Amino acid sequence: MTAATLDKEWASFGGRQQLYTHQSEETGTPMTFSVYLPPQYDVGPCPVLYYLSGLTCNWENVTAKGGFQGPAAREGLIIIAPDTSPRSDDVPNEDRYDFAIGAGFYVDATETPWSKNYRMYSYITHELPAVLAKTLPNADFSRQGIFGHSMGGHGALTIAMRNPSSYQSLSAFAPIVAPIQVPWGQYALKGYLGPDQNRWADHDATALANAVGWDRDILIDQGDSDDFLEKELRPGLFSAACEAANIDLTLRMQPGYDHSYYFISSFMDDHIRWHAERLK
Amino acid sequence: MTAATLDKEWASFGGRQQLYTHQSEETGTPMTFSVYLPPQYDVGPCPVLYYLSGLTCNWENVTAKGGFQGPAAREGLIIIAPDTSPRSDDVPNEDRYDFAIGAGFYVDATETPWSKNYRMYSYITHELPAVLAKTLPNADFSRQGIFGHSMGGHGALTIAMRNPSSYQSLSAFAPIVAPIQVPWGQYALKGYLGPDQNRWADHDATALANAVGWDRDILIDQGDSDDFLEKELRPGLFSAACEAANIDLTLRMQPGYDHSYYFISSFMDDHIRWHAERLK
Repeated sequence: MTAATLDKEWASFGGRQQLYTHQSEETGTPMTFSVYLPPQYDVGPCPVLYYLSGLTCNWENVTAKGGFQGPAAREGLIIIAPDTSPRSDDVPNEDRYDFAIGAGFYVDATETPWSKNYRMYSYITHELPAVLAKTLPNADFSRQGIFGHSMGGHGALTIAMRNPSSYQSLSAFAPIVAPIQVPWGQYALKGYLGPDQNRWADHDATALANAVGWDRDILIDQGDSDDFLEKELRPGLFSAACEAANIDLTLRMQPGYDHSYYFISSFMDDHIRWHAERLK
Repeated sequence: MTAATLDKEWASFGGRQQLYTHQSEETGTPMTFSVYLPPQYDVGPCPVLYYLSGLTCNWENVTAKGGFQGPAAREGLIIIAPDTSPRSDDVPNEDRYDFAIGAGFYVDATETPWSKNYRMYSYITHELPAVLAKTLPNADFSRQGIFGHSMGGHGALTIAMRNPSSYQSLSAFAPIVAPIQVPWGQYALKGYLGPDQNRWADHDATALANAVGWDRDILIDQGDSDDFLEKELRPGLFSAACEAANIDLTLRMQPGYDHSYYFISSFMDDHIRWHAERLK
């Protein structure tokens, strides 16, 4: 594994907002991710917090609009924002926003033609941390947190629950919590993993709550004016599963908030603080 | 003057990020602007702070990426982000980024074909406040501040200096301070106002420092890695003029920062605080 290439860097809140590209072995494509290095990075090791984005997004949406740099500078956290899928003219695609490019759903696809490139689960959990280790000498990978929005909230929940020794803190904004039971998830998991629903459960936070649990706490913020709340997100399915499994979930229904970055940025400081308290 | 039409609203930091459109008499086109209403707006009158954007931008750039909502919610300020020019298929345009659509330079054009629509000075100073007064009953127009970025910093400086009874606080990010002496300004002022440079001085902050002064203070942040620093911005011209005219300017050269929204957002909180302290 070699280091990623620094493409661009902006001074930001006393630290550095960076953009990197590397050739991914998992996806077979170049992959771009952003890194925020807080001012503390120049002094010593800092914890690493991964932000997984939602449908259609790449590194740039949350990096430009999420407002994480100020809180991360205050708390001394490194923020990593990867892409949501491989992205190249050479990878197979469908003409819809909720599958294939921009919609990797953080799984390793088993079905043709997707299985060759759509390996976002292994990319996020293994390849990206290894690349980062070569790239960021002062990143402390013994202290990692993960959060995300919508499809990325699904990714954060499922990735953390399946890898509890890798991630010490977990939160989400308006996550897809039960993909097996909602249209976005059913289409994507069938496409990537095939029709046998038994193979979907490893990628369903509500199923994982019962199957593997989570022995730390979880913060979820969800707007009650989110257009996707009833059909795609359904946080009540996850909160019921957490209650049954004795998982310490704080689910905050935020009155008036929708699914946008105006919602995410409003609660970004709370989430950064949540992770910082658990990673320091 | 009638109220503007509310097109969209997002909950944001306990307040409301709104988007309005109205038919402008000055520009002869529909004009769109954003309004942030802090939570305090629902309780009583709040001061109004105008943010004027730079070349190519409309309301959305700073509204999505500037990070003003959190500080404005804390301080109880209303933030208004107008467009940078009329914007319609019917208005004359040139195929360049620094003149005509997206580049109104906050002047009232006198030259054909621009004079019919490019009336951003009168739009910002007179029509927009009148429309807002009909639209936002709890906005306190006796307490107004103004700031902006690059071309919008030029707009903020020149508009405030020419209307000191209307604006009680003033700041800028990387402003064009001497358009008469730099290529962006020379092209635009010649196009809008004609070749007689005597008619440009009312729209040049450095000339206005000597001509009319400013009896309050001014905050300017400028990145020292800004690609436009030497050729287009040249803050030293303005600081010399302020010194000669006894104007209380705080010019902060920020090491490593460029011209981007990563720069603006890094110092947004300082600027919001600056205005709040002077408007409360």
